[in-house]
Amino acid sequence: MTSIQIDSEGRLRHLITLEGLSEDRIIALLDRAAALRTSFREGAQGPQLLAGRTVVNLFFETSTRTRSSFELAARRLGAHVLNFDIAHSSTGKGESLEDTLSTLEAMQSAAFIVRHRENGMPARLAGHARRAAILNAGDGNHAHPTQGLLDALTIRDHHGGFDGLKVTLCGDILHSRVARSDVHVLRALGASEIRLCGPRALLPDPAAFSGCALFEDFDEALAGSHVLIMLRLQRERMQQALIGDEAEYFHRYGLTRDRLSRAADDALVMHPGPMNRGIEIADEVADGAQSAVLRQVANGVPVRMAALATLLEGR
Amino acid sequence: MTSIQIDSEGRLRHLITLEGLSEDRIIALLDRAAALRTSFREGAQGPQLLAGRTVVNLFFETSTRTRSSFELAARRLGAHVLNFDIAHSSTGKGESLEDTLSTLEAMQSAAFIVRHRENGMPARLAGHARRAAILNAGDGNHAHPTQGLLDALTIRDHHGGFDGLKVTLCGDILHSRVARSDVHVLRALGASEIRLCGPRALLPDPAAFSGCALFEDFDEALAGSHVLIMLRLQRERMQQALIGDEAEYFHRYGLTRDRLSRAADDALVMHPGPMNRGIEIADEVADGAQSAVLRQVANGVPVRMAALATLLEGR
Amino acid sequence: MTSIQIDSEGRLRHLITLEGLSEDRIIALLDRAAALRTSFREGAQGPQLLAGRTVVNLFFETSTRTRSSFELAARRLGAHVLNFDIAHSSTGKGESLEDTLSTLEAMQSAAFIVRHRENGMPARLAGHARRAAILNAGDGNHAHPTQGLLDALTIRDHHGGFDGLKVTLCGDILHSRVARSDVHVLRALGASEIRLCGPRALLPDPAAFSGCALFEDFDEALAGSHVLIMLRLQRERMQQALIGDEAEYFHRYGLTRDRLSRAADDALVMHPGPMNRGIEIADEVADGAQSAVLRQVANGVPVRMAALATLLEGR
Repeated sequence: MTSIQIDSEGRLRHLITLEGLSEDRIIALLDRAAALRTSFREGAQGPQLLAGRTVVNLFFETSTRTRSSFELAARRLGAHVLNFDIAHSSTGKGESLEDTLSTLEAMQSAAFIVRHRENGMPARLAGHARRAAILNAGDGNHAHPTQGLLDALTIRDHHGGFDGLKVTLCGDILHSRVARSDVHVLRALGASEIRLCGPRALLPDPAAFSGCALFEDFDEALAGSHVLIMLRLQRERMQQALIGDEAEYFHRYGLTRDRLSRAADDALVMHPGPMNRGIEIADEVADGAQSAVLRQVANGVPVRMAALATLLEGR
Repeated sequence: MTSIQIDSEGRLRHLITLEGLSEDRIIALLDRAAALRTSFREGAQGPQLLAGRTVVNLFFETSTRTRSSFELAARRLGAHVLNFDIAHSSTGKGESLEDTLSTLEAMQSAAFIVRHRENGMPARLAGHARRAAILNAGDGNHAHPTQGLLDALTIRDHHGGFDGLKVTLCGDILHSRVARSDVHVLRALGASEIRLCGPRALLPDPAAFSGCALFEDFDEALAGSHVLIMLRLQRERMQQALIGDEAEYFHRYGLTRDRLSRAADDALVMHPGPMNRGIEIADEVADGAQSAVLRQVANGVPVRMAALATLLEGR
Repeated sequence: MTSIQIDSEGRLRHLITLEGLSEDRIIALLDRAAALRTSFREGAQGPQLLAGRTVVNLFFETSTRTRSSFELAARRLGAHVLNFDIAHSSTGKGESLEDTLSTLEAMQSAAFIVRHRENGMPARLAGHARRAAILNAGDGNHAHPTQGLLDALTIRDHHGGFDGLKVTLCGDILHSRVARSDVHVLRALGASEIRLCGPRALLPDPAAFSGCALFEDFDEALAGSHVLIMLRLQRERMQQALIGDEAEYFHRYGLTRDRLSRAADDALVMHPGPMNRGIEIADEVADGAQSAVLRQVANGVPVRMAALATLLEGR
């Protein structure tokens, strides 16, 4: 996959997955995000690095937060943004996605933000693009690289680094692109232990997550953890998880204040959102002092600014 | 309600309702709107008071004119605007409105324009917001404060002031947030007489509109009036109004040229739009010399610029 | 129709149709488009000729490419753009289109881009507008003037001019606004021969296309042609065309490499998009060296910039 996103001169051309990205490259993106975060806070306007450029949001699944975050990232850098919520429209009139891409690219669009329910669709478009950069905003259960980066930045802000960190991800690991991208970034940055926890039916093939420990017992998994990443449970997975109902799921995997006390003292509580309160997380924890949920959202914008600026500079 | 929108230092933090706003505060908003109207007309661009700020349109009911008017007000001041027409989308995925607000606020959104069919929803969000300003763009039959302000500006432009003015509102007073906000602003600015007219079933509890006179006979109400504010009749209210059909309603409450001649000579004809021509107003009046309908629309933009600038400055 | 779009001082006020526009006026638009294309390519931002102006997209039929192209044209000139996809919304609440226009115009909107399934709707709105310019983005089978202009620019780029050119349009001529606008511009610019080709049921009344030659046999039509403009076949026309199915249509009217070899050596292949690959055009031709399809799309943006700049300057 790396060969699609990195060109022959070693430049990052697309952002499809964090798998295979070097630690240096990831740290450069996080450092740039942190710098953009500061410069945007200080002045009324961020640096207009993308002035006059056009960024296209191609969302084949609905999304409030990821689409808005990318849109604001692009606009705060001075870009024009075109939005296509294709879940809702009859866009294309039977035209192939490749032809739609070529058409919008011919209008001098510089970057495409793509969310699609099929694994591999952003990579396919990256293979088809002539000059434009493709940024994966989530494809199937494959990858959600900017979520991985913003999670890493949020962890680094709090813990200073990844050395010695034990990180637990809990929930529907099997179907989660967030889990995959988080694992890739945590491995690259040197986290000590990655624990994956959930009902047996929602745990992945261990071979696909080599080096991670699998747990069905949440209390066991979170003991001593420095970071807890709670995943959203799609209600339609409940039955598949062989768990009776929401109350039963919450009883076994919901993060309560009591449970949180088993983790490390300064453990960080994270969730990619939107949260199902009372299913995977209790209000008292979601809104508590250790919750980094809104810091994750806040970091999403500069992380996406950094990704856009990095991919588009010099083109 | 005033306590929600005014902070302990007496600054306007949110704009939820005109009820309880002082005459000075309202006049300051109108004066600022009039100044912005002039400066925007003169130059190619308005003053970029909101450069780099983000304004979010959260519309839970469809609206062409109010949403566009707020969007243009924000953009002409240099802001980025995110639009959510939630009536049409599956936004939220079960997330509470408060969590949606917190999420968008974490992306450094400075103001939220909220329209909702439930009374009190904008106030509830104002109570939840951390730093952002909430502007009510219409909630149930409770309030539509920027409509009240733009109506006041339009009346002041024409009549110079409110002293001695007789104002008649006609139509579905009971369900109208426009009527409530107009009455609040007219009272604060010292209009002499406020007359509310409509079929008995669509007239409000007199106690809720103290100081206003109620009329069922339109000819009686409009005699000598300096301002006539015609309200939109929702077709679904027709039956409830115990009036046979559109023709019958027009016969009793439609504003024709004949009827208009009973009002003061220079009476102003207003309507918040969209108009039902031939139901509450005749073409000859809607398009006639005394109609201020398009001036109301025109004033909407600088009034909303003034509200946004006032709420966001110094934050 | 020309009288609607040209004022008493001979200035172009609206762009409704290319019919009756003089060669000089068309060449001025093409030259301006070519200049804007260059200046936008060279610098990060185009000239901000429309800074602070508002352009409204009023699309009553869905469209990806035309709407995006106009939106980017307006934004790259510095304008604010409001989008209304009225096919998808309940906009208007029964309000007439004229009242919607007047309302948005009262908010100081400078131009309206209108697509409508009814012939003549943009002209009707041009008759109603007070100050704003109306640009027809396609009405029924009547006209699509900016498509005609961008096609002309693409042909001129390649062939240098129109003298001696034989141009063949193939497909559903009868229902095509593109064909009508292409014919108007080709005639005005002095193309030598215009050939219209398609199944008998989809050929127009010859009187409506005076000076054009009609063909049912595609091989005959394309012999020696310098330009081939393939039109999109609406699937619902297939039955009306009295042609069995897609394979049969492709057999008779699909442009293949073999067929293309009958045209002039440097013949240009054009299509307004979206293409039905395998119905009106083969992949090998759509993606081949003679295809100008993406150059057409690319030219659409500066052509629309030129039209907007020309219509709005001096207002």
